[in-house]
Amino acid sequence: MTESQSGGLSQPAVTLSTAQKTVQVALGARSYDILIGTGLIDGAGKAIAALGDGMRVAVITDETVARLHLDPLMAGLADAGIAAVSLVLPAGEKTKSFEALMQVVDHVLAARLERGDAVVALGGGVIGDLSGFAAGIVRRGMRFIQVPTSLLAQVDSSVGGKTGINTSHGKNLVGVFHQPDLVIADTKVLDTLSDREFRAGYAEVAKYGLIDRPDFFAWLEANWRGIFSGGPERAEAIAVSCRAKAEVVAADEREAGRRALLNLGHTFGHALEAATQYDGQRLVHGEGVAIGMVLAHEFSSHMNLASRDDAARVQRHLAEVGLPTRLGDIAGALPPTDVLLDHIAQDKKVRRGALTFILTHGIGQAFIADDVPGAEVHRFLEERRSP
Amino acid sequence: MTESQSGGLSQPAVTLSTAQKTVQVALGARSYDILIGTGLIDGAGKAIAALGDGMRVAVITDETVARLHLDPLMAGLADAGIAAVSLVLPAGEKTKSFEALMQVVDHVLAARLERGDAVVALGGGVIGDLSGFAAGIVRRGMRFIQVPTSLLAQVDSSVGGKTGINTSHGKNLVGVFHQPDLVIADTKVLDTLSDREFRAGYAEVAKYGLIDRPDFFAWLEANWRGIFSGGPERAEAIAVSCRAKAEVVAADEREAGRRALLNLGHTFGHALEAATQYDGQRLVHGEGVAIGMVLAHEFSSHMNLASRDDAARVQRHLAEVGLPTRLGDIAGALPPTDVLLDHIAQDKKVRRGALTFILTHGIGQAFIADDVPGAEVHRFLEERRSP
Ligand SMILES: NC(=O)c1ccc[n+]([C@@H]2O[C@H](COP(=O)([O-])OP(=O)(O)OC[C@H]3O[C@@H](n4cnc5c(N)ncnc54)[C@H](O)[C@@H]3O)[C@@H](O)[C@H]2O)c1
Ligand SMILES: NC(=O)c1ccc[n+]([C@@H]2O[C@H](COP(=O)([O-])OP(=O)(O)OC[C@H]3O[C@@H](n4cnc5c(N)ncnc54)[C@H](O)[C@@H]3O)[C@@H](O)[C@H]2O)c1
Ligand SMILES: [Zn+2]
Ligand SMILES: [Zn+2]
Repeated sequence: MTESQSGGLSQPAVTLSTAQKTVQVALGARSYDILIGTGLIDGAGKAIAALGDGMRVAVITDETVARLHLDPLMAGLADAGIAAVSLVLPAGEKTKSFEALMQVVDHVLAARLERGDAVVALGGGVIGDLSGFAAGIVRRGMRFIQVPTSLLAQVDSSVGGKTGINTSHGKNLVGVFHQPDLVIADTKVLDTLSDREFRAGYAEVAKYGLIDRPDFFAWLEANWRGIFSGGPERAEAIAVSCRAKAEVVAADEREAGRRALLNLGHTFGHALEAATQYDGQRLVHGEGVAIGMVLAHEFSSHMNLASRDDAARVQRHLAEVGLPTRLGDIAGALPPTDVLLDHIAQDKKVRRGALTFILTHGIGQAFIADDVPGAEVHRFLEERRSP
Repeated sequence: MTESQSGGLSQPAVTLSTAQKTVQVALGARSYDILIGTGLIDGAGKAIAALGDGMRVAVITDETVARLHLDPLMAGLADAGIAAVSLVLPAGEKTKSFEALMQVVDHVLAARLERGDAVVALGGGVIGDLSGFAAGIVRRGMRFIQVPTSLLAQVDSSVGGKTGINTSHGKNLVGVFHQPDLVIADTKVLDTLSDREFRAGYAEVAKYGLIDRPDFFAWLEANWRGIFSGGPERAEAIAVSCRAKAEVVAADEREAGRRALLNLGHTFGHALEAATQYDGQRLVHGEGVAIGMVLAHEFSSHMNLASRDDAARVQRHLAEVGLPTRLGDIAGALPPTDVLLDHIAQDKKVRRGALTFILTHGIGQAFIADDVPGAEVHRFLEERRSP
């Protein structure tokens, strides 16, 4: 990708061509490739067969994705000589539960898969997180392959090895780190994704610009329409996003430090998801993140850490692509601010009682703030709610 | 320990004194100590407090152990200024279930423990395996401390980081590797253990001799009474066992190779446990291992790999301490040999369909056999059953 094509993206990551792109996640012996390109699902069987002889797989997916994309995947597996079983679960966040985990584990064990065999996640982040957790605990860890089908999963959840489920105490509070052996991101399957889900995934794409790639954010402001319409900008944006996440993950696999930057917008976002009972009608994950990122920039400005202008620019771009950016954009009533704050405090990024947030000095200048006073967050949120 | 005290133990490991012994498990940044000594439980709070400031803990235990040993532990924690909650589960193998796992996870999350806080397992291998699994998945891994109270847990399950639960498909098929931060083995709590459970744990002690410490096995033949009666031989045998296991674990943390030697007697043993529906009235784990070790030696002799005499010597010693050593020693009927073989094949040590066993060239000369023909095992077992 050249400067002119990238609209000012100063760190060219990959070329703006329609050919398949490969991003490597460098984790020593556990390094793996992310394949990105259009129509890759048809050849997924071959790519998986290349991982090892005589491998068998269990494909985990959800009802919506199964209807649209399971057949070509299974056909490709059969063509490649890979014995495969499949399990179709209900679509939606509620599937990230202990009950569904037990179902997946039982399915994999009933098929008598061994450590060298693989669990294949075909779906969005819900299926990826759940299946990866199951792959991480069956026989104390089996092979795992991600075939992400939502934009969010392609740019975020399928990369990095975080897996997990939700409990009544909060989101993602139970899980393991379990890296995949391969990620296959077919950009064409995104054509069947609803506009709403596509936009939600786009929030995570924008996040990488906001963390530490200001030029990428500017490129997105100029090129987002090509990403949405399925132009070559789509694979480009996905590759830059994967590379951004892969870099952070390689530097900090277990989230001891820098990896926390990926939580930009997520502390507020998770609290909003909890406050809306993970009801996807009211708020999906990426929407929570969009509002959360705007709140993080505004709170940073409120704390005199960043300019109001940057916060406004973030809000403007996310609103332009059609994402919610305000608490008031969420349908229905929100619980009192105290309850929101409780959700924030139960969030797993809490350390020994102190509130940790990802704040920013401006677009592309996010940082980890360890000692954010709860009272200040409370005041700030109260202001947002009674404008 | 000198040669004369050790009855021929050629590699003196620790001295035969009543002082506290420490065995280190060397795993780089995840190294930890095993403290071994009489009465350590009273000072456990202090030892735990030394791990970190302001730590909070959730103690997980079973009804039997709670009645006998929970109060002194909780008192010591309180004295050391550690906030602690406790959860008491039913005693027995059935507690290694998804249901109990969910209970522990819920208990830990309800107490709002964070990553730097600890789950403390006070009990035998069941409580240790279950609690360690919970500690490994809550917030994708929190601190974990083992206070093993059975002989088996002190010499085996509390060391090495293997955690897990059982499912209807088999034992320990679901779990994670999660190393403890500290192991506190109080040799005095073993005084309340039933004779049967003590003997079962002793099978694992003997195992270390049979794997690669022939002199230790000879020392056990001469000194076992002191171990059973609570003499200084007890802490000695526990320390040698922990050191033996720690060495193997340090060399092969994730069970890719040499660690499999620790499964001597376990492939047969697990099949027998499954065949008796994990009914502790009929067979406890160490008893299955005792019979399994005798079978492994006899099968090795049957395959002309080891002498009949060594197999006979193993059988004699285990029978002398009161352990079952024959299929016929198990109360009630066993299922047909085909079913036993099915249990063996579902065992997680199976690799791509080939039967893997730990066989031996004689006492202290165990090795990993990757390609044991199922038909030969079938014939051998049939012979044992119709003597
Ligand atoms: N592990 C991580 O690092 C990580 C990172 C970010 C988010 N997450 C998790 O990811 C989840 C959200 O992911 P998500 O937004 O993909 O949710 P999702 O898996 O629920 O997918 C969203 C919806 O889109 C549908 N869908 C997916 N692909 C489709 C396609 N190609 N065509 C038509 N419909 C399709 C699904 O059936 C679902 O209804 C959350 O649970 C979040 O916690 C995990
Ligand atoms: N993780 C590993 O590496 C590993 C290794 C070997 C065995 N294991 C597992 O360990 C389990 C067996 O361990 P176990 O034999 O300790 O079983 P256990 O935990 O069930 O304990 C046996 C019985 O002794 C009782 N007990 C324990 N300590 C006592 C004490 N001090 N006084 C009186 N009663 C006491 C318990 O209540 C229980 O009824 C199996 O599930 C096995 O799979 C795990
Ligand atoms: Zn996210
Ligand atoms: Zn054992």
